[in-house]
Amino acid sequence: MHKVAVVMGSDSDWEVVKKAVEVLKEFGVEYEVKVASAHRTPDKALNFARTAREKGFGVIIAAAGMAAHLPGVLAAVTTLPVIGLPIKASIEGIDSLLSIAQMPPGVPVATVGINAAKNAGLLAVQILSLNDQDLAGKLQAYKEKLAREVEEKEQKLLEKME
Amino acid sequence: MHKVAVVMGSDSDWEVVKKAVEVLKEFGVEYEVKVASAHRTPDKALNFARTAREKGFGVIIAAAGMAAHLPGVLAAVTTLPVIGLPIKASIEGIDSLLSIAQMPPGVPVATVGINAAKNAGLLAVQILSLNDQDLAGKLQAYKEKLAREVEEKEQKLLEKME
Amino acid sequence: MHKVAVVMGSDSDWEVVKKAVEVLKEFGVEYEVKVASAHRTPDKALNFARTAREKGFGVIIAAAGMAAHLPGVLAAVTTLPVIGLPIKASIEGIDSLLSIAQMPPGVPVATVGINAAKNAGLLAVQILSLNDQDLAGKLQAYKEKLAREVEEKEQKLLEKME
Amino acid sequence: MHKVAVVMGSDSDWEVVKKAVEVLKEFGVEYEVKVASAHRTPDKALNFARTAREKGFGVIIAAAGMAAHLPGVLAAVTTLPVIGLPIKASIEGIDSLLSIAQMPPGVPVATVGINAAKNAGLLAVQILSLNDQDLAGKLQAYKEKLAREVEEKEQKLLEKME
Amino acid sequence: MHKVAVVMGSDSDWEVVKKAVEVLKEFGVEYEVKVASAHRTPDKALNFARTAREKGFGVIIAAAGMAAHLPGVLAAVTTLPVIGLPIKASIEGIDSLLSIAQMPPGVPVATVGINAAKNAGLLAVQILSLNDQDLAGKLQAYKEKLAREVEEKEQKLLEKME
Amino acid sequence: MHKVAVVMGSDSDWEVVKKAVEVLKEFGVEYEVKVASAHRTPDKALNFARTAREKGFGVIIAAAGMAAHLPGVLAAVTTLPVIGLPIKASIEGIDSLLSIAQMPPGVPVATVGINAAKNAGLLAVQILSLNDQDLAGKLQAYKEKLAREVEEKEQKLLEKME
Amino acid sequence: MHKVAVVMGSDSDWEVVKKAVEVLKEFGVEYEVKVASAHRTPDKALNFARTAREKGFGVIIAAAGMAAHLPGVLAAVTTLPVIGLPIKASIEGIDSLLSIAQMPPGVPVATVGINAAKNAGLLAVQILSLNDQDLAGKLQAYKEKLAREVEEKEQKLLEKME
Amino acid sequence: MHKVAVVMGSDSDWEVVKKAVEVLKEFGVEYEVKVASAHRTPDKALNFARTAREKGFGVIIAAAGMAAHLPGVLAAVTTLPVIGLPIKASIEGIDSLLSIAQMPPGVPVATVGINAAKNAGLLAVQILSLNDQDLAGKLQAYKEKLAREVEEKEQKLLEKME
Repeated sequence: MHKVAVVMGSDSDWEVVKKAVEVLKEFGVEYEVKVASAHRTPDKALNFARTAREKGFGVIIAAAGMAAHLPGVLAAVTTLPVIGLPIKASIEGIDSLLSIAQMPPGVPVATVGINAAKNAGLLAVQILSLNDQDLAGKLQAYKEKLAREVEEKEQKLLEKME
Repeated sequence: MHKVAVVMGSDSDWEVVKKAVEVLKEFGVEYEVKVASAHRTPDKALNFARTAREKGFGVIIAAAGMAAHLPGVLAAVTTLPVIGLPIKASIEGIDSLLSIAQMPPGVPVATVGINAAKNAGLLAVQILSLNDQDLAGKLQAYKEKLAREVEEKEQKLLEKME
Repeated sequence: MHKVAVVMGSDSDWEVVKKAVEVLKEFGVEYEVKVASAHRTPDKALNFARTAREKGFGVIIAAAGMAAHLPGVLAAVTTLPVIGLPIKASIEGIDSLLSIAQMPPGVPVATVGINAAKNAGLLAVQILSLNDQDLAGKLQAYKEKLAREVEEKEQKLLEKME
Repeated sequence: MHKVAVVMGSDSDWEVVKKAVEVLKEFGVEYEVKVASAHRTPDKALNFARTAREKGFGVIIAAAGMAAHLPGVLAAVTTLPVIGLPIKASIEGIDSLLSIAQMPPGVPVATVGINAAKNAGLLAVQILSLNDQDLAGKLQAYKEKLAREVEEKEQKLLEKME
Repeated sequence: MHKVAVVMGSDSDWEVVKKAVEVLKEFGVEYEVKVASAHRTPDKALNFARTAREKGFGVIIAAAGMAAHLPGVLAAVTTLPVIGLPIKASIEGIDSLLSIAQMPPGVPVATVGINAAKNAGLLAVQILSLNDQDLAGKLQAYKEKLAREVEEKEQKLLEKME
Repeated sequence: MHKVAVVMGSDSDWEVVKKAVEVLKEFGVEYEVKVASAHRTPDKALNFARTAREKGFGVIIAAAGMAAHLPGVLAAVTTLPVIGLPIKASIEGIDSLLSIAQMPPGVPVATVGINAAKNAGLLAVQILSLNDQDLAGKLQAYKEKLAREVEEKEQKLLEKME
Repeated sequence: MHKVAVVMGSDSDWEVVKKAVEVLKEFGVEYEVKVASAHRTPDKALNFARTAREKGFGVIIAAAGMAAHLPGVLAAVTTLPVIGLPIKASIEGIDSLLSIAQMPPGVPVATVGINAAKNAGLLAVQILSLNDQDLAGKLQAYKEKLAREVEEKEQKLLEKME
Repeated sequence: MHKVAVVMGSDSDWEVVKKAVEVLKEFGVEYEVKVASAHRTPDKALNFARTAREKGFGVIIAAAGMAAHLPGVLAAVTTLPVIGLPIKASIEGIDSLLSIAQMPPGVPVATVGINAAKNAGLLAVQILSLNDQDLAGKLQAYKEKLAREVEEKEQKLLEKME
């Protein structure tokens, strides 16, 4: 199975990013965590992305805030899908959302919501599930668990209201 | 190989969406095009998404404008990766970008830029390339072509400037 | 008299939504509260909305945050008026306001302000009052109470200033 | 059956607003059209709204652009549901959307999307349908027509693509 | 000398608005404070504004938040200059700024910054100073005091830095 | 009677600004037009504003686009009321609106809407009317004319609809 | 004297960027024009920036639109000042402004306004003028020319108005 | 070597601005700190900027919030590069960013990110480094330190994760 790389521009992003890692663990997906900045360690970032496919990675999750260039810069040098995770660090995270989503033609980044680390992890699992029946099954079970949780929460809420 | 579904909320989105289809053709990826609206034909949309995996689809590209619910609604009922393509139909497309990207925890949508249909197509190809060496090779060649085009454009510009 | 359904995408919305319920209670309008998510329990949400009219509901209040698809998804399958209540969960609630208000032609949602649960409740009462003289009278009295409260607050403020 | 009032702040709004009127006609709902401005003819606007219920109106559609006060000002003096239709006249219509939707607690306005006149008309019909089986039936038929049109458009698009 | 009316839509605005009143006191300008809402007490608001000129008022300061209609509604029925003070109550006050500033042609409101109550007060004094040499002199002295304060603050800062 | 100065940052603003001048003419208010830029001719701008009061001016209308500093810079050196007119030259005029309205405490600018030159002129007339019964009367007549025009436009619209 | 590099992400930016080049020509500053994309030719971009100082460049002007990463990416690998020029290609250029200006601590980009190519050129000249008396003199003369042009435009406008 | 002037509109900006000063100290660049407001002490601000070049300054850092005119006003009267530092004081700092960046053609301001004082300091050092080999070397060392810090933080994060 392909591994997932979880790259963040700054270790201060970890409190958000860790939810992506928790998802990967929960689904039994192998991953590696890296701190690499498009602006402070560009070579490290680029070298990693350039060789990620041959090293067995299948997806790169890249998290960054403000002028969030990391996902786009990694996407520039890999043909793997790159999931961009905008971190809220200024003006409500709108700057990072736009810096990640609005990529020019030819170099896509799969953007998730602001601080939506759990969804970044799930999207990586979905991508890997295309050729992994086991993961596909776990995703289906996860979806059913989500639905059950809504039911339980409704139940609790209705009891509280009585 | 998995097929790609290209679903749009309205046939008026076609002028934008067709660039995604052109990419899929160019890469030799099998695809199907559908018009299905989260608001006008919700059953059709949901039924399609629910059975998309078993019908051999690997990725769903979903395009919609304004309060763009289609990608999220499809993602609700499939474990396949859903690529959300925000169409610019009002307030510069900011409404559709936010309606697609800002999904709640548990149900990700892989959002590309506003009107970025070509990138939606490329992202689908990248996802399928994980288990398709041929596609991976074509993506690498595409990247090199992009780089050569930049060089040629620079050359033309410098000649024009002389 | 028609009942009002109060549907929220997540039980975490309850702290805001309960003000809508308080208004319904205050006006003696029958209501039911549900937790149903457009993304986590789409079938439940759709099934509810599809049969809401025949079950005696007259208005559906639907609250959701971020990419707030719930009101629009319910409106897709009912001909009842749906009141959309945008919950502030990210970027000041602007994402949910746009996701709810900017519906495509053919499927309206009656949107109230961000976190404006009280107004969602009042709007439901206004709609039901069209054929209920008693409710119309209570609304008139409510309006007069609002005016008196302004007077009393002015009085207190002027006393405080002296 | 209750009548619908369609009030606009300026006759220049008519090109947008007329789609609301066309819907009302299509559904056989009686209506009256008025030009009344919260800022240029406040007395006319207020006097109309104050007596609208007793004159047999059931819903007021109020359209305005920029600092769009008309819907809120009418809602201040009536207990009828007021549908606010934000007209795009400046900064992409965001000013009118916010001026209409963000009403203070106690005085709701049922806001539809920017320039969404058709939806304003449909929402009025939905409200009136609560006590009018005939309208309810027509709305159901309208929904089915919307769905059929999507199918036809898909058909045409697929033919064009071949 | 003309009096200044300070009208606020809600007594909860007082914590902000009182800085306008402090300025009026400081300059010895006569004023009256009122709570009057465009939406909860429209008649009171309109009746006040309609007769404000004949009662000796020269300027009306009107403060409101969210869909802030009060300044525009007062301006609709008076030929006195109305100063609109946007209160920050939601989405950083951008809704109230736009609701106040973006008035249609024919009915201006003199808008100051978000929560800028001191400036609302000063603007009123500037307007009254046109025919009041004493106020004009005090404004000049105020300007000089502002400048001196900057100097003193610089001095303190430089000392702190040493 | 006091004169009104109409200052614009660039002669390209004239197409918008001239509506302010037309209002002043219509009301018989004496005015002078100037082109003076906070950035290109700061001395001219400041020298004008510094001596404006003693030269008989009562109000300064200052129009500027983008990073619109002119109104604030003039307000810095005069105690006259300065009306700021934001010109739409980029990003829908939001930059100029914010650059003009969001003045720091101590130095107000009376901001009108984006490109709202007519309202800038009317606000100047309102300010001058405080001590000019004739102007006050003309403003009242203008208000009545606005109302009549709304009536006539309604009449025409209703005729067109028949 | 140091040279200025003018780098743009796409040759389609040239219509805007050329105004920067015209300024450099006008001031007699040596420059080189390049097309290099952070996403399509990252190596070229990085290699250029990495060796720019030793090749005699003193300033890099980098223009890009949408998710405009080029200026930041160049700034990552050079200690020269990088001037970022946001190109308007989508949502009024706000995405590129934020992508360029909101750089993380440690790697600044000197951002000019949206499409403000002339200012990018002038800023480069100002930077080079620190150690070039001749350029400093020309900048002073340019400033005086700007002022004279304002005077001439005022003159023409006043004549036109008569 | 040229000195750097650090000018702020209000002493309340110091908590942000001091990071710029710390950078200048760290690089051994001579600097002077001033409090001068475009609106409260315009003469002081202009007089300083006008003579800054002849007094040995090479760069001016100007910090201001809200309608942040200080950087533009200083740039109007000097040919030195002016670095504009937008301070977050209202609406997330978007007002000050736009007020500083969106300068009209002819008068550039080198804008850094919102509250990005460290970057303002570094940009000043970069500009001065053009003719100062020592500073250039220190900047290179600083860049390498940034990269090492990323490595160390990664190390710590990975240890924490184990």
